[in-house]
Amino acid sequence: MEKIIPVGILGATGTVGQRFVQLLAEHPWFEVAAITGSQRTAGRPYREGVNWKLNGDIPEAVGELIVQPTDTKLAVGGKTPVVFSALPTAEAREWEPQFAAAGFAVITNASAFRMTPDVPLLIPEVNPAHTSLIPAQQANHGWPGFIVASPNCSTTSVILPLKVWQEAFGLEAAVITTLQAISGAGYPGVSSMDILDNVVPYIGGEDAKLENEPKKLLGAAVNGQLQLAAVKIGAQANRVPVFDGHLASVSVKLGRSVSVDEAIAALENWQPPAVCRQLPTAPARPLIYHHDPARPQPRLDRDAENGLAWSVGQVRECGALDLRFVSITHNTLRGAASGAILNAELLVAQNFVKRGG
Amino acid sequence: MEKIIPVGILGATGTVGQRFVQLLAEHPWFEVAAITGSQRTAGRPYREGVNWKLNGDIPEAVGELIVQPTDTKLAVGGKTPVVFSALPTAEAREWEPQFAAAGFAVITNASAFRMTPDVPLLIPEVNPAHTSLIPAQQANHGWPGFIVASPNCSTTSVILPLKVWQEAFGLEAAVITTLQAISGAGYPGVSSMDILDNVVPYIGGEDAKLENEPKKLLGAAVNGQLQLAAVKIGAQANRVPVFDGHLASVSVKLGRSVSVDEAIAALENWQPPAVCRQLPTAPARPLIYHHDPARPQPRLDRDAENGLAWSVGQVRECGALDLRFVSITHNTLRGAASGAILNAELLVAQNFVKRGG
Amino acid sequence: MEKIIPVGILGATGTVGQRFVQLLAEHPWFEVAAITGSQRTAGRPYREGVNWKLNGDIPEAVGELIVQPTDTKLAVGGKTPVVFSALPTAEAREWEPQFAAAGFAVITNASAFRMTPDVPLLIPEVNPAHTSLIPAQQANHGWPGFIVASPNCSTTSVILPLKVWQEAFGLEAAVITTLQAISGAGYPGVSSMDILDNVVPYIGGEDAKLENEPKKLLGAAVNGQLQLAAVKIGAQANRVPVFDGHLASVSVKLGRSVSVDEAIAALENWQPPAVCRQLPTAPARPLIYHHDPARPQPRLDRDAENGLAWSVGQVRECGALDLRFVSITHNTLRGAASGAILNAELLVAQNFVKRGG
Amino acid sequence: MEKIIPVGILGATGTVGQRFVQLLAEHPWFEVAAITGSQRTAGRPYREGVNWKLNGDIPEAVGELIVQPTDTKLAVGGKTPVVFSALPTAEAREWEPQFAAAGFAVITNASAFRMTPDVPLLIPEVNPAHTSLIPAQQANHGWPGFIVASPNCSTTSVILPLKVWQEAFGLEAAVITTLQAISGAGYPGVSSMDILDNVVPYIGGEDAKLENEPKKLLGAAVNGQLQLAAVKIGAQANRVPVFDGHLASVSVKLGRSVSVDEAIAALENWQPPAVCRQLPTAPARPLIYHHDPARPQPRLDRDAENGLAWSVGQVRECGALDLRFVSITHNTLRGAASGAILNAELLVAQNFVKRGG
Repeated sequence: MEKIIPVGILGATGTVGQRFVQLLAEHPWFEVAAITGSQRTAGRPYREGVNWKLNGDIPEAVGELIVQPTDTKLAVGGKTPVVFSALPTAEAREWEPQFAAAGFAVITNASAFRMTPDVPLLIPEVNPAHTSLIPAQQANHGWPGFIVASPNCSTTSVILPLKVWQEAFGLEAAVITTLQAISGAGYPGVSSMDILDNVVPYIGGEDAKLENEPKKLLGAAVNGQLQLAAVKIGAQANRVPVFDGHLASVSVKLGRSVSVDEAIAALENWQPPAVCRQLPTAPARPLIYHHDPARPQPRLDRDAENGLAWSVGQVRECGALDLRFVSITHNTLRGAASGAILNAELLVAQNFVKRGG
Repeated sequence: MEKIIPVGILGATGTVGQRFVQLLAEHPWFEVAAITGSQRTAGRPYREGVNWKLNGDIPEAVGELIVQPTDTKLAVGGKTPVVFSALPTAEAREWEPQFAAAGFAVITNASAFRMTPDVPLLIPEVNPAHTSLIPAQQANHGWPGFIVASPNCSTTSVILPLKVWQEAFGLEAAVITTLQAISGAGYPGVSSMDILDNVVPYIGGEDAKLENEPKKLLGAAVNGQLQLAAVKIGAQANRVPVFDGHLASVSVKLGRSVSVDEAIAALENWQPPAVCRQLPTAPARPLIYHHDPARPQPRLDRDAENGLAWSVGQVRECGALDLRFVSITHNTLRGAASGAILNAELLVAQNFVKRGG
Repeated sequence: MEKIIPVGILGATGTVGQRFVQLLAEHPWFEVAAITGSQRTAGRPYREGVNWKLNGDIPEAVGELIVQPTDTKLAVGGKTPVVFSALPTAEAREWEPQFAAAGFAVITNASAFRMTPDVPLLIPEVNPAHTSLIPAQQANHGWPGFIVASPNCSTTSVILPLKVWQEAFGLEAAVITTLQAISGAGYPGVSSMDILDNVVPYIGGEDAKLENEPKKLLGAAVNGQLQLAAVKIGAQANRVPVFDGHLASVSVKLGRSVSVDEAIAALENWQPPAVCRQLPTAPARPLIYHHDPARPQPRLDRDAENGLAWSVGQVRECGALDLRFVSITHNTLRGAASGAILNAELLVAQNFVKRGG
Repeated sequence: MEKIIPVGILGATGTVGQRFVQLLAEHPWFEVAAITGSQRTAGRPYREGVNWKLNGDIPEAVGELIVQPTDTKLAVGGKTPVVFSALPTAEAREWEPQFAAAGFAVITNASAFRMTPDVPLLIPEVNPAHTSLIPAQQANHGWPGFIVASPNCSTTSVILPLKVWQEAFGLEAAVITTLQAISGAGYPGVSSMDILDNVVPYIGGEDAKLENEPKKLLGAAVNGQLQLAAVKIGAQANRVPVFDGHLASVSVKLGRSVSVDEAIAALENWQPPAVCRQLPTAPARPLIYHHDPARPQPRLDRDAENGLAWSVGQVRECGALDLRFVSITHNTLRGAASGAILNAELLVAQNFVKRGG
């Protein structure tokens, strides 16, 4: 398939926006046709307006694009105009519905509408069928376009092993403690005076996201209605002095008695949904199980499968609930920009976004 | 009371041994009269045999002491000869019973006998009555002396708030995730290549200690018999790039329904056992509750009360069990050397160690 | 002497201002009588207006003081009203002359007037006689009060060993490379994303300070005129992931051929100016020479002598110039608040500030 | 050219040996045919004998090779048998001459013979003509093979900009201060307790290497004789908490007066020797000059050009000598394994190593 789907990026100058720019520059399907930024940067070439913080250079083609103000008149082109949203929460809340109303497919990394019942909270490997909410969403609002959201980066870190066990054994409860990387807070984000020789056992709003979003991701979309999964979750998020990579330590209560070997086998034998094979950037091995008891580790495992794998280990009995495990994902790739791009690929594969420039 | 109780230190040249030397130099009751070390260091002045790694200078008096081989002929003096043991586990297993058999009060930081039923696993603020196991221990073995153990530094970090709630509400289960400092592994300990820009979700043997030791500390000593507490514990230990201070994130199931306010009030109103007021280095405020949601933090709170306080915060509802909290203690002070010295003070106050040089 | 000298603090809510508050709470001579802050905080008790970032609690007495706007009507009291200035540079430039004109002794940590010829740039151990510039300063401006400045924290880290060798051997040139702690940038200061697993070889304006300020500190005050020292200095400042403590690696060209032993002896035999013995917080050993080749180190040596010592080591031949050394000082104590307080003590001892409340 | 040059690796299980294994697995010319290790690992498949510490998996083919004892009977094959040496210094001193005597081309990363007059100390971009020492080396010892050495990783970090200015302007003296990454010390190497929240201003033997090796690299090979460059160098090495990437801050005295612009132009206009274009892994841009005053930085720049670039910045006047600059290279790639592989490629291009399996 040729590179024929033009896309826009809302909020292209921020940390997540820069990741979209970087990743889409190499994408086999999508081409960045338009970008928006704040009033401060609008009207200037991207190269001049952005404070580029990623390794490597600004992609040549995007560097010359003129930053537009965020507005639904944005000229993206394409049969279904697509925008990736890296807007701050408040702006996302204001603009994303307007873009959907104007006919755009809005693929967002923002938290504004994640828990809205008719907005799919989507990960292709976990719940690709949740896109069936889209027609209901369009009908509810009279929108020609729609919004699809990615979960929080900490939710992402735990969700695939939970999904695998939910399907195999049933899932009743989970106690989650995360050790999250500083890049999750953006730039400048966490002051070095707060995190050097220290950890911070608090990330505002994060515990609630960890307790709520999995219920939606693990739920069922039935007749355009999302039914939350009946799983009880308690969570506590910590910030640690790690650059990239969120680690989660999870204890679970399952639907039935399961041996450690059986639980590991379920992870090792799991296969992604068939549709994932059509997605060009889907990882060959989305779930990597480590038998070394000291793995996974953020520095060693965050980049596995181009930052798109869940690295899982230490499945063992829990003295309080049933089983425990440790899981790691790359928070700005799988947990943010790359995850949203995979969602866009899924929407193309499912024909919610029409091919063609 | 004069400084009239001479003590020995077994394994005085290692990391924990150095802490004993440093802390005892200023102690109002105890005076270091004899020290032991490995064959490599025995026979030389301490100053020459030790690779001193603590801030500040080697205490003058101890620096001139000749390092002895570890042997029960050690001349400590005192009505009850006292030794603090900072021996490695294997040596502790070999030597500590021999010292008890030779009439010494062995106050150990080693793990060898922590879970032995007739050895008190002791923290003065938590279970001072467990010293009632000592006569049974002496009778069981025919020892004139005895062994008293301190818990693991990670166990220590969670135990006081668990004790307070156990007494107030009953305690059924706990899920514990720790973020532990590098100093807990001694020197050279953790390679910088393993921990810079990284966390390691594994500390060999630590999870089992966290799951077992609290059952003994929270248990009851009845007629010279220790009854373990019937609490279910699941634990996972992480190493993080923090110099000192272990943080624990804990979710608990209590014996009855308890509001957050009630649970915080139990912590804030708790008073240490009366005997603690007789111990010269017992902290004025052993339990400090923080209402700032971002506290406690290792760097800010590890040194509270000379490193002897439990700093607790974030008591709130847990979506999976009942309540959650975060707790921090200084791992090499409260969790090691200072804790053992407090145990020795308790033994003096309870007359298991006789005053007099 | 009784605690009878009231003082004010300008800019008491910032990072350096908090240090002044903390250190002056325990001071034997000075008592904080008035504090100023920004418009946001003025009118409220200090406890409520400040975002306290230091370990330990806000001193009780100051916590209740009402924050005043920065204005020369500030009621400090005292025979010579004294203010410590922790103002940002632009505000310092505006306000410090007005306070001097209003009769205050302004003891500043700001950079605004450091290189002004008639303002003493002062360290009691280095150039206590430079206060002889004060009468000229007062005459030049017609001020009843005056301004005395502390050098930049990086300048401080190198200046005492340079001074000792200048006096002993003559000093022609120095090449300085610093490794500076993050606390030097204040809070929030350096983003963790800039400094984790990284060093930043650039601190805006710092190189120029390192090249200029030593010429003034090493110069001579003659007849109310400051003659800069004729030493050539090249400098480059680096930010490193260390919390506190600036390290400098220095290569020097001396006025004559000097052996390593002779150079070390000069450091070890150096005695502070006699007036320093009258200053209550002056360190007993301002200059500590380490023979261990791996010392000094920031974590091990920054707190020596309550953070007021220069820790120096590794004096050896330089293959390009004459000799090399490494020096460390605590940047927020000796290099900022404590250094300014020592200056105030010197002004009392020299009677530029009159005793009495 | 086909992949037809078999090579051996001496000391393949250590940190540098692992890098050779990893890098050679993808090499277009070389193929690993034999590997040696310590007595502990000899006789077992590499996969079982090695404690693999690099990201990514052990290359399939090498994983199955049986580790041999280090011995000149090693069967490598090839017209000129080639061995890369990652041996520890003492073993290198013993074995490398024996391998040369046995006809091997020994391309070593060890320090044992770096300063030996007839052993080329080689970097293709700096001094490719120094291989003219090889025939003299062979004649001096009667060896059919030879030894070629790579410089120390800290020397490497400064040498290319020094070379460029030496050629353009003459070079009289340099004062070098390095900030070196922990990976330079191997595994386990630096204890985390020594480097967390700290820097260590001492690396044993490193200062002498920094002062001596550049004189050889910048010298001239004339009639099989190496003439050291007449440049005076003073150096001090620091260890900093950075994973990879050595930064050097350098002040130089040049042969004539040079403006900053002229000096930058010399760096930007420099072209590598023509022979480098024949080397398959030679970087397209070996020298990258940054105009951003905060660059280069280790985390941002160490991976430039697959870790083979010198990233240079901050050329400006030095108040003591003439000019200053900052330079960064990747210490385990350009400064170790990749640098040695480039040397091997140069030897093939210059026909010191014959093509053919």
